[in-house]
Amino acid sequence: MTTTEAGATAPSGQTECADHATHGYHKQKDEHLKRLRRIEGQIRGLQRMVDEDTYCIDILTQVSASTKALQSFALQLLEEHLRHCVADAALKGGDEIDAKVDEATKAIGRLLRT
Amino acid sequence: MTTTEAGATAPSGQTECADHATHGYHKQKDEHLKRLRRIEGQIRGLQRMVDEDTYCIDILTQVSASTKALQSFALQLLEEHLRHCVADAALKGGDEIDAKVDEATKAIGRLLRT
Amino acid sequence: MTTTEAGATAPSGQTECADHATHGYHKQKDEHLKRLRRIEGQIRGLQRMVDEDTYCIDILTQVSASTKALQSFALQLLEEHLRHCVADAALKGGDEIDAKVDEATKAIGRLLRT
Amino acid sequence: MTTTEAGATAPSGQTECADHATHGYHKQKDEHLKRLRRIEGQIRGLQRMVDEDTYCIDILTQVSASTKALQSFALQLLEEHLRHCVADAALKGGDEIDAKVDEATKAIGRLLRT
Repeated sequence: MTTTEAGATAPSGQTECADHATHGYHKQKDEHLKRLRRIEGQIRGLQRMVDEDTYCIDILTQVSASTKALQSFALQLLEEHLRHCVADAALKGGDEIDAKVDEATKAIGRLLRT
Repeated sequence: MTTTEAGATAPSGQTECADHATHGYHKQKDEHLKRLRRIEGQIRGLQRMVDEDTYCIDILTQVSASTKALQSFALQLLEEHLRHCVADAALKGGDEIDAKVDEATKAIGRLLRT
Repeated sequence: MTTTEAGATAPSGQTECADHATHGYHKQKDEHLKRLRRIEGQIRGLQRMVDEDTYCIDILTQVSASTKALQSFALQLLEEHLRHCVADAALKGGDEIDAKVDEATKAIGRLLRT
Repeated sequence: MTTTEAGATAPSGQTECADHATHGYHKQKDEHLKRLRRIEGQIRGLQRMVDEDTYCIDILTQVSASTKALQSFALQLLEEHLRHCVADAALKGGDEIDAKVDEATKAIGRLLRT
């Protein structure tokens, strides 16, 4: 649950999905990176706007666009997670599915609350 | 309403508030830039996480943190806007206040919808 | 800040705006009540859906619609508040405007976070 | 996708999950109905507040609480849906899981956007 710039490393215990090494988002990796680079550009655009004393409302519009882009990225990631990790856990049987669903639900809750 | 990286320039007609040149967020400019640089760092952290195949759920946690930071920045900007531009429009009298309130409400609506 | 069914009574100290007795939303009172009755109907519709074992996804769609309707009501109320109470505080001068803007910003923050 | 008070009936084609007749939320049915009745009470509380000219900010606080309660209900429903319907689709094999995940992701997207 690291939320710092440094990023998080997969906690041990997640190996069931990590067996797949790529958590289901491998194929989309390039697309994800492209999306994130575009968002990074939007954030730099915001800095330029603040620096140039752009009208507040226009800055807020840009913030809304960046937030939407982030949520959209999260949704894409979540879809792949459900399709791969959660579905895998179901196939494996046992308690795994409960843990996975619980974890995914908490992540969705955090997205809703932000 | 430019939402591109290029940023928006203050539309003409916003000069009532632009007279103040700094739209009320001048004093906080450094603080704003610092916040935005931190968010930029978070987005780069996300790229690193994707690149290193970090577990999806941990990436989602970081997305939630970045979204929250963006919303928090927007709220700060909005507060200054209400305190300066909207209050100024009220003092000026005339129709100005209606236009300003309408504009601010629409911006809040966009933030809620993202 | 009462959040119970019982509802809140205007806290003393809000009399600056309460002088207007109707907090700026008087004219829209009927419209507000109509909106809220429609939302109440949506919530009762949700109970019926749960009772009749409606498919989860369809219930979630209805929840999204109800949430949107509530946010839309909040935005309308906020607009009137900014137009009347906040603008009045600006005209009065003194510290009043700071308190009003602070209060409004916190309310917007709560709406964003829900 | 009915969003009216009348509620939605399960669309044909959802029978895979409807076989379970109760879509996984059967055991929680009473709890769900209790939650929804409480939310209905909050909405009626809002009507009373508007009717009694309660201070706008206090009404907005109550709206935030109701919205949060609705989102919380949605999250609970979603968890049961993932645990039962989505997991079942994974076990069944075939294309079913793709359709279910796609459908769930769209529902989450609607919740995020409201």
